[in-house]
Amino acid sequence: MYNPTHFSETDGIEIARLCQEYPLALIVAADADGLTANHVPLLRDGADFIGHVALANPVHGKITSQDPVLAVFTAGDGYVSPNWYPSKAETHKAVPTWNYQAVHVHGHFVFSHGDAIKRRVVSRLTHHFESLTNGSSGWKMGDAPSDYLQTMLDGIVAFRLVVTRIEAKSKLSQNRNRADRDGVENGFEGQGNTLMTAAMGRQNRD
Amino acid sequence: MYNPTHFSETDGIEIARLCQEYPLALIVAADADGLTANHVPLLRDGADFIGHVALANPVHGKITSQDPVLAVFTAGDGYVSPNWYPSKAETHKAVPTWNYQAVHVHGHFVFSHGDAIKRRVVSRLTHHFESLTNGSSGWKMGDAPSDYLQTMLDGIVAFRLVVTRIEAKSKLSQNRNRADRDGVENGFEGQGNTLMTAAMGRQNRD
Repeated sequence: MYNPTHFSETDGIEIARLCQEYPLALIVAADADGLTANHVPLLRDGADFIGHVALANPVHGKITSQDPVLAVFTAGDGYVSPNWYPSKAETHKAVPTWNYQAVHVHGHFVFSHGDAIKRRVVSRLTHHFESLTNGSSGWKMGDAPSDYLQTMLDGIVAFRLVVTRIEAKSKLSQNRNRADRDGVENGFEGQGNTLMTAAMGRQNRD
Repeated sequence: MYNPTHFSETDGIEIARLCQEYPLALIVAADADGLTANHVPLLRDGADFIGHVALANPVHGKITSQDPVLAVFTAGDGYVSPNWYPSKAETHKAVPTWNYQAVHVHGHFVFSHGDAIKRRVVSRLTHHFESLTNGSSGWKMGDAPSDYLQTMLDGIVAFRLVVTRIEAKSKLSQNRNRADRDGVENGFEGQGNTLMTAAMGRQNRD
């Protein structure tokens, strides 16, 4: 993506946070039929990401481990009005823009049809998201009848997204002065845009 | 994208709403260097979409009007716990999933470097987003000094995304019974996930 230095996000902790808090990635690949994109939750596993798709999803038959894949995690976003900048009243040198945060993960897929790997991937995803949602009373794979669970597992394909490059962008008015950045934070807050208010706040406190 | 019939969104009014309320699209294209993706706000213009990118963004030099382009609009999303389904307590036949809404617009770019077209595109985007943000007291292009505005216009490239196909997905638990769908709506509401609570509510009222 177009990523000028002043907007480039290089903080590994912030990049990891964005991938963890906004886990539904858009996974894009190009095959002979053109561009294909699927919305799939991803979980970090060491330097890579793991996940699964439906067996009925043709993506796993079309994309080989040689094909480039891009997974995009998107956090909040919002329109920025020039009226939000205190400096606008003095210089009028301001135009609208859009703020957002995103992480682009480049790599390739390794798909797995094996039962053991599929169970491991589903177990890890389940444990992670159930802990976040229901704490210690989370749903477990063992709660489902084993024949039903097996049918569900037979209907998916697991994958590892082997990461070759990560690029992230926090477009948060870093090119404006502090008063203007505070104005943007206030503008988002007034709209009830909690994600961007928090993002501006983190950036303004740095 | 993988889009089973029961999740396929075919309501043109809902598709138009998603594109309008979540206008920051991820625009994906494939060039000789691989996959490239940029986050760009889009505005409907008849059957197409209009927008602009920075002149410094190499995308306008790499993608020709022959290359396929995919613009993805993403609305809310959220993890769905099996514990949210009332039927789970009876049959235990439930596994986790993820709900979301997205619109995939396929087409191609026509870029414009002409000043008149750039002014028209910027004017339309500005009027649209300023009206939403500030009503009748919105910022206007004429509020900026003309030489400053010209410099800003010289720094962008306008485009039309000529639409060839639109595909949309509302993955909102349509494969569960009404009580389970209400459980999902309540689950999202309990988490403060307002976007998905509203989406489930719209779907449940249909």
